[in-house]
Amino acid sequence: IRRELVVLHASMQIVVHKDGPRGNHFRRAGPRQRVYFEPDEVHACIVTCGGLCPGLNTVIREIVCGLSDMYGVTKILGIQGGYRGFYARNTIDLTPKSVNDIHKRGGTILGSSRGGHDTMKIVDSIQYRGINQVYVIGGDGSQRGAGVIFEEVRKRGLKVAVAGIPKTIDNDIPVIDKSFGFDSAVEEAQRAINAAHVEAGSADNGIGLVKLMGRYSGFIAHYATLASRDVDCCLIPESPFYLEGEGGLFKYIEKRLKENGHMVIVVAEGAGQKLIAENMKEMGQDASGNALLLDVGLWLSQKINEHFKKNKTTINLKYIDPTYMIRAIPSNASDNVYCTLLAHSVVHGAMAGYTGFTVGQVNGRHCYIPFYRITEKQNKVSITDRMWARLLSSTNQPSFLSKQDVDDAKVEDERTAKLLDGSPSNPKVEDKVASSNSNGVKYLFVSH
Amino acid sequence: IRRELVVLHASMQIVVHKDGPRGNHFRRAGPRQRVYFEPDEVHACIVTCGGLCPGLNTVIREIVCGLSDMYGVTKILGIQGGYRGFYARNTIDLTPKSVNDIHKRGGTILGSSRGGHDTMKIVDSIQYRGINQVYVIGGDGSQRGAGVIFEEVRKRGLKVAVAGIPKTIDNDIPVIDKSFGFDSAVEEAQRAINAAHVEAGSADNGIGLVKLMGRYSGFIAHYATLASRDVDCCLIPESPFYLEGEGGLFKYIEKRLKENGHMVIVVAEGAGQKLIAENMKEMGQDASGNALLLDVGLWLSQKINEHFKKNKTTINLKYIDPTYMIRAIPSNASDNVYCTLLAHSVVHGAMAGYTGFTVGQVNGRHCYIPFYRITEKQNKVSITDRMWARLLSSTNQPSFLSKQDVDDAKVEDERTAKLLDGSPSNPKVEDKVASSNSNGVKYLFVSH
Amino acid sequence: IRRELVVLHASMQIVVHKDGPRGNHFRRAGPRQRVYFEPDEVHACIVTCGGLCPGLNTVIREIVCGLSDMYGVTKILGIQGGYRGFYARNTIDLTPKSVNDIHKRGGTILGSSRGGHDTMKIVDSIQYRGINQVYVIGGDGSQRGAGVIFEEVRKRGLKVAVAGIPKTIDNDIPVIDKSFGFDSAVEEAQRAINAAHVEAGSADNGIGLVKLMGRYSGFIAHYATLASRDVDCCLIPESPFYLEGEGGLFKYIEKRLKENGHMVIVVAEGAGQKLIAENMKEMGQDASGNALLLDVGLWLSQKINEHFKKNKTTINLKYIDPTYMIRAIPSNASDNVYCTLLAHSVVHGAMAGYTGFTVGQVNGRHCYIPFYRITEKQNKVSITDRMWARLLSSTNQPSFLSKQDVDDAKVEDERTAKLLDGSPSNPKVEDKVASSNSNGVKYLFVSH
Amino acid sequence: IRRELVVLHASMQIVVHKDGPRGNHFRRAGPRQRVYFEPDEVHACIVTCGGLCPGLNTVIREIVCGLSDMYGVTKILGIQGGYRGFYARNTIDLTPKSVNDIHKRGGTILGSSRGGHDTMKIVDSIQYRGINQVYVIGGDGSQRGAGVIFEEVRKRGLKVAVAGIPKTIDNDIPVIDKSFGFDSAVEEAQRAINAAHVEAGSADNGIGLVKLMGRYSGFIAHYATLASRDVDCCLIPESPFYLEGEGGLFKYIEKRLKENGHMVIVVAEGAGQKLIAENMKEMGQDASGNALLLDVGLWLSQKINEHFKKNKTTINLKYIDPTYMIRAIPSNASDNVYCTLLAHSVVHGAMAGYTGFTVGQVNGRHCYIPFYRITEKQNKVSITDRMWARLLSSTNQPSFLSKQDVDDAKVEDERTAKLLDGSPSNPKVEDKVASSNSNGVKYLFVSH
Repeated sequence: IRRELVVLHASMQIVVHKDGPRGNHFRRAGPRQRVYFEPDEVHACIVTCGGLCPGLNTVIREIVCGLSDMYGVTKILGIQGGYRGFYARNTIDLTPKSVNDIHKRGGTILGSSRGGHDTMKIVDSIQYRGINQVYVIGGDGSQRGAGVIFEEVRKRGLKVAVAGIPKTIDNDIPVIDKSFGFDSAVEEAQRAINAAHVEAGSADNGIGLVKLMGRYSGFIAHYATLASRDVDCCLIPESPFYLEGEGGLFKYIEKRLKENGHMVIVVAEGAGQKLIAENMKEMGQDASGNALLLDVGLWLSQKINEHFKKNKTTINLKYIDPTYMIRAIPSNASDNVYCTLLAHSVVHGAMAGYTGFTVGQVNGRHCYIPFYRITEKQNKVSITDRMWARLLSSTNQPSFLSKQDVDDAKVEDERTAKLLDGSPSNPKVEDKVASSNSNGVKYLFVSH
Repeated sequence: IRRELVVLHASMQIVVHKDGPRGNHFRRAGPRQRVYFEPDEVHACIVTCGGLCPGLNTVIREIVCGLSDMYGVTKILGIQGGYRGFYARNTIDLTPKSVNDIHKRGGTILGSSRGGHDTMKIVDSIQYRGINQVYVIGGDGSQRGAGVIFEEVRKRGLKVAVAGIPKTIDNDIPVIDKSFGFDSAVEEAQRAINAAHVEAGSADNGIGLVKLMGRYSGFIAHYATLASRDVDCCLIPESPFYLEGEGGLFKYIEKRLKENGHMVIVVAEGAGQKLIAENMKEMGQDASGNALLLDVGLWLSQKINEHFKKNKTTINLKYIDPTYMIRAIPSNASDNVYCTLLAHSVVHGAMAGYTGFTVGQVNGRHCYIPFYRITEKQNKVSITDRMWARLLSSTNQPSFLSKQDVDDAKVEDERTAKLLDGSPSNPKVEDKVASSNSNGVKYLFVSH
Repeated sequence: IRRELVVLHASMQIVVHKDGPRGNHFRRAGPRQRVYFEPDEVHACIVTCGGLCPGLNTVIREIVCGLSDMYGVTKILGIQGGYRGFYARNTIDLTPKSVNDIHKRGGTILGSSRGGHDTMKIVDSIQYRGINQVYVIGGDGSQRGAGVIFEEVRKRGLKVAVAGIPKTIDNDIPVIDKSFGFDSAVEEAQRAINAAHVEAGSADNGIGLVKLMGRYSGFIAHYATLASRDVDCCLIPESPFYLEGEGGLFKYIEKRLKENGHMVIVVAEGAGQKLIAENMKEMGQDASGNALLLDVGLWLSQKINEHFKKNKTTINLKYIDPTYMIRAIPSNASDNVYCTLLAHSVVHGAMAGYTGFTVGQVNGRHCYIPFYRITEKQNKVSITDRMWARLLSSTNQPSFLSKQDVDDAKVEDERTAKLLDGSPSNPKVEDKVASSNSNGVKYLFVSH
Repeated sequence: IRRELVVLHASMQIVVHKDGPRGNHFRRAGPRQRVYFEPDEVHACIVTCGGLCPGLNTVIREIVCGLSDMYGVTKILGIQGGYRGFYARNTIDLTPKSVNDIHKRGGTILGSSRGGHDTMKIVDSIQYRGINQVYVIGGDGSQRGAGVIFEEVRKRGLKVAVAGIPKTIDNDIPVIDKSFGFDSAVEEAQRAINAAHVEAGSADNGIGLVKLMGRYSGFIAHYATLASRDVDCCLIPESPFYLEGEGGLFKYIEKRLKENGHMVIVVAEGAGQKLIAENMKEMGQDASGNALLLDVGLWLSQKINEHFKKNKTTINLKYIDPTYMIRAIPSNASDNVYCTLLAHSVVHGAMAGYTGFTVGQVNGRHCYIPFYRITEKQNKVSITDRMWARLLSSTNQPSFLSKQDVDDAKVEDERTAKLLDGSPSNPKVEDKVASSNSNGVKYLFVSH
């Protein structure tokens, strides 16, 4: 007894945000009383795209188990090797039994890939195979790709729900509270920081340098630093820094070594890119031709070593790059819960007949969000808000900021906040007063 | 150049909530531009009370480092062995150096204790030693104790800030989003569940039974179950269950063993207490005289074994009680961040001259909350909301609920929500419709 | 071109020990130039019996991969659920692909069982299925069972190789240097001891009590104690102890609590059984009727609590039983190597036409050992040798021994050494002089 | 009542080996009935030298606790920052209390350093401070240094015992069975290999490349490969390899990618050094000027990428260098036991009046070994013995060996065996027959 959900049937798309006096709203995720697809008609497929992230297998598992246990769906295909797998690889059948233990392994059982793909061929394959639910687990590029697939599907008038689960270990996807795998990554990063701390502490003038993920956003470096309590300096893309002179990194390193005999620096992979480019230009080098120097960790190691060699001070710098060891771990308990909720939400959404959406937690609630909302910009660490102030006050590192930098950052943050959130209930928008208190403490104050 | 903060000076207390059309509000935590205490006048003390919880040492460390690094405070005492330590034990000096590595160890370096204490003697000790900031890390009983100490301090007209950091591994403290250590506990509980799963899966008719913490609230059992994906049944205090007959536990166990050959049950320590009491009354036993049977894990093991023996079915039940192994671990990265924020918040509050408050995150923001608000009732798993529905749909266990039970629970939940939150923006209040969808799926629906 | 191995063909048995002037010798394990079975004729089966032990899956994996990769064997059956599975359960096909990842999981993918089985039915099943290689992974009982199967197979004149891999987490199998899984168990036991230490250290008069495996042999307790450095007392079956009076356990506990404020006790499950029996007889109780008191951990907890209650001293005893959490872990790296070598050895042996043997490392070399040699007695901690002396000197616990006890133990040890080893090159036989040195240090001296 | 130990008093040195028909013998380690030093006269010092290794802190702890608990020694100095610390740094007092928890941390609490030192200044410092027991924890260079210090001490006629505990994470010290920390390093290496396996398995033509420690000896790579079961190729210094042509690495990679879609390669840091040098010479590069290419991992990554680019095959190579993350971990349970035994042995030896020796386990027994015996050559993986054959048969990698290579290696191994061991009871000397069996299996056979 199929119930016709007329509106959704007609457009296969819903309006998922409303502009109103209290800002943007997204539709709550969750099971609907009426489902659009009859379970035995469903032919779902799952694809994972881009770099590894803890929790990929949990999301796969829970889409499969959610479809099967909650709705009785039996036909679920795994597309192998990312988007290109739609036309270039074999598929595998996914069953609750075959995915039963995969959440205890890192990586993705479906394989993944980066780089280009042919949307037409993908939609041809969807059409040819009779697939009517497409689940895309991937980063902003892949979500953008899913948006294009969704448009093509709609153009062809196919009754196919296209849904995404945003994946980014860097937490750089906007709108949503947190991306899955982030917590596990921060946890695993502690190992590298601990090792750096032990190495630094066991040597004269020991410096432990750890590079963490974060090409455009320094969240992992930021939270890993806050969690560790062993880090003396955290460098992220959002907060430019400089090496020489007062307030620069070298002076700070000298100070910490003098005070404490050793120190730990955490650097996000995207930090200091402008500085590196300038520096290499000065030296007559072309960045594009020198892969070594583009790695901020190796570049910084070299610069620090050179500086102290010039100053005739012996230091012991140990550089650790744990990137692949972090990406490849299985998700921790907290991420397992989160991945499960995301997967169940996306299944409920697709079964209810929604399409062209991605799932995410926004202000604590699971929502359906149109693709374009999460791909239009990137989530960044706000260097004028409370969390970054907490980091600065815990590491005691220099802020590397001029007054102008702070003002610029504030304008940018406000613009972003307005664009994305609008709502006064959004916890990301914090009241802040940048200044110094009576003790000369440098952070953002809460007004009484 | 001491600035007089008249209001706070007069009463050492602030109004931290306002009733308004949008509910209760608490003051935002964070640094204030004016501080009440001159750093070199501060004589702080820290005490830990009650059972162990991951993160105690991190909180201690960060109060010490926060006072020292952010404000330059140098006199910080550690009270040993809980409240009684104020008058019965020696104190120890706490410095950033002495607490530097303690966050990597479980337990509390200050020691702890349960049971009665003498408020008068404590305040005498505070007065005698010239202490003017008291930081109490403890559960609801200890926070209540802190409230009484605060009243006595005020009665005596002492200029002493009394502040609390709520500690409960069970997450049963209301108002706040989550208690510290909870995440670490859920993570560590995975080990026990994994072991139960392996033991069960390696035996004919294997049953793995794991008891987790939660005397009055089943949050750890609930989240550990959601995180594991290996659990077939989760029993918590908030959801009464029964053993015999249709819809009872035994039938469900029989069904799972038949389907799958083995199963895993997670039970919160406070689950089924009424059932146990009734059962023992029937058998003419007095619960108070028999410690064995009061342990729900041992009791349940015995009942299950008896049932299958009666039915001439051989089962292999393995019972695991990981309680102490969970409580004693160091906090994970996520809890380390949370403990740091709580500790820094409480330090900012006390330095600003607030007193009679505890800190906590409410709807994503760190706040100052009057003592009485967190001790007046307990946080409980709502068995009518979405999270519990998610668990039920993932384990496929029976709900054990009659229509009456659901209605009762909803009335109770609504009463609580009104009492505590009021605000429509509170993420804990979810719109829900209890019913079945077109596929007979049993959970709570979101209205379109 | 099948080479006939006449001798082995005739009897399918070899003489694996020789009595000579330098003691017993076992045949070296390893590949032989001539193999008895043509790979495409081989029909192997694997069965796991008894309780769980880390490494079972690694041994299964490596027998399968060894047979397949090294010899090209393709027909390998997994017998499910222990010996009874030969006639009461379905079998599963084992391939390198199907066992590829199992070494990363605890337990046994084949399932296991304890208790009786019917040898005739097993050999019927072997004969009926045309199996010609039987690999039995199990403890002393199962190895004895394998011996009986081997005899029956020989009686029926079947060309079937019956081979064993000894499994005992307790390390209580004689002749061999160490049983697989022991290292992993000692490693995992550290968690429980750490938790006990943290709990004890965080309470006034805190006592952490950990029960570890070891029904007849205290090796796990012994090595876990040596590894931890946090244990104040280790009680094992081989060293009887008493509670009351001078030199008794209670006095020692009182001393340690006075000195240090807290302590950790490790007890092997088989320790003090005689004492418990006597104690219960005194109290007019029948041990067999009271499961609670037969658990030495619970019994000891009760006795210690009673003692201090009587003495009006408040103590905080926390009892931890991590047994199932230890048994169920996957094997660590060291055990993975060991399991691999054992599995490859047994495969080489069976392929070469040996039968009626078990594999093991003896004095550092992998050997083939006749079944009866490892089942005729149990390996025990020698309380008169160097290792136990090292433990005593590191915990400073009382030896609980009278002169008579030491003499008895030495006679027993020597008898065993003679029986089992004979060879002067056996590292287990140590020269020892029990006495006190000039500093009153109580251990065994090496003669100059 | 001081007993004069005339012989030792006279020379402070003993003959610790005897040449005899059955080879070299070392004196058994252990407590002696007569001690040379009165405990209250002892002024001990401990120094750690060279790179980090798991277990350093355990050895420090156990020397301190051993001296204190077993002999009542109270004056123990920690020399900071390696050998140079004798004259360039402050010392710290070591007590059982101050070292109580250090075995749970990685690194060395004393700090370490590499590079030159001034023996005269060291002995001046020993003499000046009145130190009479010197414990040196360090690698072969440091043990050689200890030998020189010992000679100078003797020349000056000082009554100072100089003793060593050999430290090498690479296990490249000869004579002894195994160096401390090796087991922990192999265990921790599994993480990196797992990550490489996950990364490789999640990509098309994924290659995970892990560099492990081992400049001259490939033991860590060897055992980590055997333990993991996920490694397809293991390259060590002892077994030269080549890239191009039949039997070369590239062909093997192509084969594995074709068969399995992905692969994992483990390379010891010292592998292929000759090949790299030749290769760079061909390309007209000077090795000394290019740090990048001297890292075998980076070099190999580049070569593999170039090869497949030339062949127009897209591969995904992920290179992991976990060196510092492995070195910095605390020791595992097995190494804790081993470190304890080594530390207690060295304490017994020094207290008994031995000097000029190092401790180690030889054929399962703890011994005192003269310095020169462990510094005269290096321990190497024997590529003609059984263990390496086991690795080859488990990875199925090419042996990269010509007949000539095998013969050369055998001659070398035999020479070494004769030199070091002599004794027929030495388990390192295995009977071997290099050949192929009837199934074409390529390994070393045991003669029947």
